Amino acid sequence: MKAEIIAVGTELLLGQIVNTNAQFLSQKLAELGIDVYFQTVVGDNPARLRQAIEIGRSRADLLVFTGGLGPTQDDLTKDVLADCLGRQLILHEPSMAVIERLFSSRGIPMVESNRRQALMLESSHPLENTAGLAVGNGVSEDGTLYLLLPGPPKEMKPMMEGAGSAWLREMQGELQPLYSRILKFAGIGESNLEAKLLDLIERQTDPTIAPYAKEGEVAIRVSTKAPSEGEANPKIDETVSQIRALAGEFLYAERDIPLEEQLIALLRLSRRKLASAESCSGGLFAELVTSVPGSSGEFAGGVVTYTNQMKHQLLGIPMSQLEGAGAAGAVSESTAALMAERVRLAADADFGVSLTGVAGPAESEGKPVGLVYAGIAERGQPTVVHTLNLSGDRTMIRLRAVKAVMYQLWLRLR
Amino acid sequence: MKAEIIAVGTELLLGQIVNTNAQFLSQKLAELGIDVYFQTVVGDNPARLRQAIEIGRSRADLLVFTGGLGPTQDDLTKDVLADCLGRQLILHEPSMAVIERLFSSRGIPMVESNRRQALMLESSHPLENTAGLAVGNGVSEDGTLYLLLPGPPKEMKPMMEGAGSAWLREMQGELQPLYSRILKFAGIGESNLEAKLLDLIERQTDPTIAPYAKEGEVAIRVSTKAPSEGEANPKIDETVSQIRALAGEFLYAERDIPLEEQLIALLRLSRRKLASAESCSGGLFAELVTSVPGSSGEFAGGVVTYTNQMKHQLLGIPMSQLEGAGAAGAVSESTAALMAERVRLAADADFGVSLTGVAGPAESEGKPVGLVYAGIAERGQPTVVHTLNLSGDRTMIRLRAVKAVMYQLWLRLR
Repeated sequence: MKAEIIAVGTELLLGQIVNTNAQFLSQKLAELGIDVYFQTVVGDNPARLRQAIEIGRSRADLLVFTGGLGPTQDDLTKDVLADCLGRQLILHEPSMAVIERLFSSRGIPMVESNRRQALMLESSHPLENTAGLAVGNGVSEDGTLYLLLPGPPKEMKPMMEGAGSAWLREMQGELQPLYSRILKFAGIGESNLEAKLLDLIERQTDPTIAPYAKEGEVAIRVSTKAPSEGEANPKIDETVSQIRALAGEFLYAERDIPLEEQLIALLRLSRRKLASAESCSGGLFAELVTSVPGSSGEFAGGVVTYTNQMKHQLLGIPMSQLEGAGAAGAVSESTAALMAERVRLAADADFGVSLTGVAGPAESEGKPVGLVYAGIAERGQPTVVHTLNLSGDRTMIRLRAVKAVMYQLWLRLR
Repeated sequence: MKAEIIAVGTELLLGQIVNTNAQFLSQKLAELGIDVYFQTVVGDNPARLRQAIEIGRSRADLLVFTGGLGPTQDDLTKDVLADCLGRQLILHEPSMAVIERLFSSRGIPMVESNRRQALMLESSHPLENTAGLAVGNGVSEDGTLYLLLPGPPKEMKPMMEGAGSAWLREMQGELQPLYSRILKFAGIGESNLEAKLLDLIERQTDPTIAPYAKEGEVAIRVSTKAPSEGEANPKIDETVSQIRALAGEFLYAERDIPLEEQLIALLRLSRRKLASAESCSGGLFAELVTSVPGSSGEFAGGVVTYTNQMKHQLLGIPMSQLEGAGAAGAVSESTAALMAERVRLAADADFGVSLTGVAGPAESEGKPVGLVYAGIAERGQPTVVHTLNLSGDRTMIRLRAVKAVMYQLWLRLR
């Protein structure tokens, strides 16, 4: 099946927002085994939308629309498609009831234009909107399928993953759905991981193994078509075992979660607590760890000691360690060790981690940009400091330093 | 002039990357006064690319291509366009010389396919690539313009801003370029700002005033067409004065920089230093402030005291303040004041800021999600605590709390 994605919205043509919907829908359609041949963006203009529909139906079997289902006069997708197909718009009563209940529960009168959100094409399949008011639509006509989804990602995504995908599966009939598992890696770059798995990737045709691009993370997707999840899982399990044999030391999760979330889960399991002392990373370690909901049970806190004064005042590191003739300096293995140890003690935590280095843009203490010392102090264990030589700009060096020390901690906890 | 943007690349149709190029190009074309009517994405397939070109030239005066200029067999844009227009590809000698010099300086033999990157359509305008090897192209034929840009954003953006825009200006002939200024606001939401400026926005036709959507920030763009920057600036200055009269207390910069960068600049000017004590925001304040290069002169550091033990240990806040019968608790005005004061003293800084509150998802100490106390302690001044009631999910509450305390600090420093 050949598909075209048509995003409707003048704000896209003005560059006010980026078309992330097209990426999401392309991924989901690929998972359903549907090939996307074109993506189109058109403004809130009936003549041009009509033109896009005519072109789309001439070259694709499925047109997936996103946007233009809302209440305003600019929301035209249903009107224009109904006109193209010579169908009427009818009211979807259950959606109308939801809209009316919402307004009456808020005690405000319903603006008449909200009725538009409950309209659907006659003889079509309504798609429930679990996160908003505009009903979606699945329409089949003359060998072409039309899937109408809302524009806001928080409404479009659940509809596509739920009612939209179910309708497409049904329309595809005997075709088997695609089941996938995401594997997340740390401590290794994408090209090195691919090199390790190259033979397997080339040899293996089912399940397929493919890189799954996500900014700043390394992930691969293992996918197979099967009649049911029960039949897909053993095939996926076997491929994952083969991947584990080749790169298991870097594989931290078999689902799409960030490394910090996996770390918090492991700390919770082992009932241990963590504290951090950061210099070059400026609080990014603490920020990522605390972005995991409920992390206060496992993360006691941290310090961001950007100056020597703060390292001395908050962590009790001697000034003679940091400055003056013969001092090791702030960016040094021994300072990293002291920072990790002192913050662990201050927080009465099981682990103390530290990062001190040069994130750039300029070198510091005569040390090069990208040199970072990562310390890990553990209760009852000798402190270890890892020396990192990182590339990239300031933002990348900070992120890579944080992920590198998280990876070392994960190796201890797994 | 009506334009269509055609992004070429199968990785876009697979959803492996998001089409940020289309957003960037739409913004730049709008600045040139060119209306974008369609955006299209097509894969690395000659027949479908040809089809996209035929459709595009039938409905637009300018086709802007991005992608498909590289050395591989998948890079087809120039070949297919040359074929469509019945033109030959010729070698652009200066680009070829750059490619040859690069390979010889690295001491490795040039792979023959790299010659492809120096090819251009005959009788066209070459566009220098300052960040990569593939030469761009400006082609005029039969009333239609074709602008060929590389796909990687780090090559495409400078080419569009430099040689590409210059060529388009020349082709548009007498048309005046558009000059713009971005105004950045804090301490006010987008809809409230628009309400304040509504009369002005509706009354004013030149320069135009338009919201400039950026995630999590409030910005507007003031634009006018003029023969030169010298003639545009006084017109823009006058409009900015009118905006200042209506909303000056929220206008923190007349260029597109984040609030934290403006704060660091003001601290530097007044030779003052800042320290932070964070609870609910988990290090986000420190992380954003230290993301500004060179901020170590103005930011001494901070603490992330996620537990009461850390608040006591690092900041010396009495446990009786935090826990037990009759205690104010960690989320309280008095704890916020103590955190700001103690971190200021520990860092020997001029300002200490603090954030303590409930970011969610669950309430804490019986206090509701979104309640945040923001403290500011200043050397020689009474400490002030602001009570915030923030909406949004965990991520939004953290970000809004951080930006709110930055705004209060900016009010003091400006």
